[in-house]
Amino acid sequence: MSSEDDTISFPELIKLKRNGGQLSLAEIHTFVQGVTTGAIQKSQIGAMLMAIWQKGMTDEETLALTREMMNSGDTFKWPNEWLVLDKHSTGGVGDKVSLPLAPALAACGCKVPMISGRGLAHTGGTLDKLESIPGFNVNQSVQQVKQILEDVGCCIVGQTESLVPADRVLYAIRDATSTVDSLPLITSSIISKKGAEGLSALVLDVKFGRAALYKDLDRARSLAQCLVTAGNELGIKTGAVLSRMDAPIGQTVGNAVEVCEALECLKGRGPDDLRELVTNLGGHLLWMCGHSSTLENGKHEIAVKLKNGEALNKFQAMLEAQGVTADVARSLCSDESRYFEYMKRAANQTELKVPKDGAVLDIDGLALAEVLHKLGAGRTKSGEKIDHSVGAEMLVEMGQLVQKGQTWIRIHHSSVDLSAQQRSDLQKALVIGRQDQYKAASRIVEFIYPNHHMS
Amino acid sequence: MSSEDDTISFPELIKLKRNGGQLSLAEIHTFVQGVTTGAIQKSQIGAMLMAIWQKGMTDEETLALTREMMNSGDTFKWPNEWLVLDKHSTGGVGDKVSLPLAPALAACGCKVPMISGRGLAHTGGTLDKLESIPGFNVNQSVQQVKQILEDVGCCIVGQTESLVPADRVLYAIRDATSTVDSLPLITSSIISKKGAEGLSALVLDVKFGRAALYKDLDRARSLAQCLVTAGNELGIKTGAVLSRMDAPIGQTVGNAVEVCEALECLKGRGPDDLRELVTNLGGHLLWMCGHSSTLENGKHEIAVKLKNGEALNKFQAMLEAQGVTADVARSLCSDESRYFEYMKRAANQTELKVPKDGAVLDIDGLALAEVLHKLGAGRTKSGEKIDHSVGAEMLVEMGQLVQKGQTWIRIHHSSVDLSAQQRSDLQKALVIGRQDQYKAASRIVEFIYPNHHMS
Repeated sequence: MSSEDDTISFPELIKLKRNGGQLSLAEIHTFVQGVTTGAIQKSQIGAMLMAIWQKGMTDEETLALTREMMNSGDTFKWPNEWLVLDKHSTGGVGDKVSLPLAPALAACGCKVPMISGRGLAHTGGTLDKLESIPGFNVNQSVQQVKQILEDVGCCIVGQTESLVPADRVLYAIRDATSTVDSLPLITSSIISKKGAEGLSALVLDVKFGRAALYKDLDRARSLAQCLVTAGNELGIKTGAVLSRMDAPIGQTVGNAVEVCEALECLKGRGPDDLRELVTNLGGHLLWMCGHSSTLENGKHEIAVKLKNGEALNKFQAMLEAQGVTADVARSLCSDESRYFEYMKRAANQTELKVPKDGAVLDIDGLALAEVLHKLGAGRTKSGEKIDHSVGAEMLVEMGQLVQKGQTWIRIHHSSVDLSAQQRSDLQKALVIGRQDQYKAASRIVEFIYPNHHMS
Repeated sequence: MSSEDDTISFPELIKLKRNGGQLSLAEIHTFVQGVTTGAIQKSQIGAMLMAIWQKGMTDEETLALTREMMNSGDTFKWPNEWLVLDKHSTGGVGDKVSLPLAPALAACGCKVPMISGRGLAHTGGTLDKLESIPGFNVNQSVQQVKQILEDVGCCIVGQTESLVPADRVLYAIRDATSTVDSLPLITSSIISKKGAEGLSALVLDVKFGRAALYKDLDRARSLAQCLVTAGNELGIKTGAVLSRMDAPIGQTVGNAVEVCEALECLKGRGPDDLRELVTNLGGHLLWMCGHSSTLENGKHEIAVKLKNGEALNKFQAMLEAQGVTADVARSLCSDESRYFEYMKRAANQTELKVPKDGAVLDIDGLALAEVLHKLGAGRTKSGEKIDHSVGAEMLVEMGQLVQKGQTWIRIHHSSVDLSAQQRSDLQKALVIGRQDQYKAASRIVEFIYPNHHMS
């Protein structure tokens, strides 16, 4: 208020956004610095996030917020000759794409310093999945990450303390204050972390559908455009794939069971939809960074690395580099696939039966994930322990003809029995109908590139 | 989210209001309990307050919030035969009305357990003013308040720890998060505290104008209606006076100087506009509680108590009951008015001169208060020390004919000199024009009563 004072106070900053005003670069700097140093009170952060949720941000504000968050801590620096790639997914049910993708890209000679998250609510987290493997250590220092990239080419690690500290504060508060689903807040959170990784190229898997953050394609497309714009403005070649997220990806949902399915994919087997996502997302990265001359060439190279065992070898090396014993890593990656000799299996398995003859028209990924969540596969609040052995294996595929009494799903659980409600919720997730009602469709619906890529 | 769980989580509560929904009684109870016990995080309180600021509340929600806040701590209980009265002002410059009003009402046989606040930003606080008097203790226990009401009839005290604890938390966070000017938040804060005082009747002085919270009459009227409705719903006979707040009330602004002027009013002297406010607000209370048969009779009785010394005697007794020595209390209340023998006088006085001949058309109370604030009369954040001796005495009245070179204001300050900027700001506060441009007007513009009073 005072004309003698150049700096704006936190209440004034909040008031400006509260009234729908545009924050300047300097004001966004002040806000992010306040968040990082703790000078701004938690109540003020909550109010500012709600004001941003209500009033939105311009592209300039979103970019400034992203850049300030990126610069709130350390950023990775790599040798100039490295092609440093990463993928980010907005979260889905049964999404184990990162596990085959990172080693497949490393097998192409690229570097993948993948910083992943943990699961919250109904979506699982890549770190939780990997921790099903005895000995796997997601906590790696900046120096260790560099070493693993030099030696192996890929790693999958948790966020370090020193990278984007502002995001850790804001992310926890967004979760507590119902301000998660805001375009500028989602964009700045995702892209600031990717910016700090020092990437050459980034592909975003933006999901839409009943088990995704956004149910409809239009909102997902808006988010994808916002993410792609911010990434490219930071100097990262960024593109997005819009993909359908109604039924689970692949045939497994959970933690240990998803690792098994990812290993199958790395052995050139496993479900088609998972392989399609891995090759497409990887192909985009190889093309955008200049490694491949076309998207199709990029996809082909990924498919080859999954088939010829090179991606699997990289995965095995990554497991060892991140703390898994050579014996366990070798056994998991052998052709025999006796995974539960090395990973914990849940005490109980319950099989559910198809209620009538017909074709599988739909499997509701959200309903399935919510039951698994209650069984212990997910967490309700940050920091909670989860049960890695809880999960589901689907024994039928979309479109498949099935008969009454046939097993369609196997639930792995530690509880003695499933409740009547849980059984009923699971059965409702399966939709059986006439075969001619089923239309096969790719999960991948649309690509979003920045303007200079489309020309 | 879960159907097995009856209680709503804090993020879900915030989401409901974020989306413009209406909170149920049970949900508002959950929120206020969370605030009081500390179960809800500060960031969540900030986000909820911003959501309420953005989306508003219905009358039912506002009343529920008020009632839950009132019941978040102890409430006063009084003997049935007592007429327990209080006044609340939304804050003005030079507003020392409480000081003569409380003892005048006590002189009429009523009880006034006045719980006042401290100044923040440009408006002064009644507690700060009284603390200019050596020995005056605003901290009185519930038991002490009861005793003083029995013995004297009035007291002016700070908020006790046990009364409306939810408001102390919310008030501090509203201030920090720019969510002060929200009808439901203002209403619940004011009326919950008055409800906890166990009042028979309450009059609200809702100010509008350049030095008030709301600049225009319409917004002030909306607030007054909201306050009057909530007060009456809680069973307190509540009315409001809408009064103009452009020029300062009376001839003084500050802390010690305002006490002197209040004492002059209690001695049957002092400025007319102050006396008009005191008699009107007091008259409303006497009428609403049933002590007086008409508003005019109530006003008359207050005027008599100011003239005949009975209000002054009550004030003197109140000073003694709240820790002032008998000698100081008697001297301040004697006819001699040598106030600065007992209260601290600022080291320096600076007199400013009228720049040209003419009539005083306006004195900008906000500009004046802002200069005094910088000189130490006010605080920028809660808990700051203030300088009670800083203040201003205006030596001219609105409409008065003045001559160039005549002193119009005397500033009391501890700093060695006023800065050129401060002198310029003060001089700009004085508007001189032609006498025929001045229109005398009462500060009191309108009354707001609940429906059952107007019939």
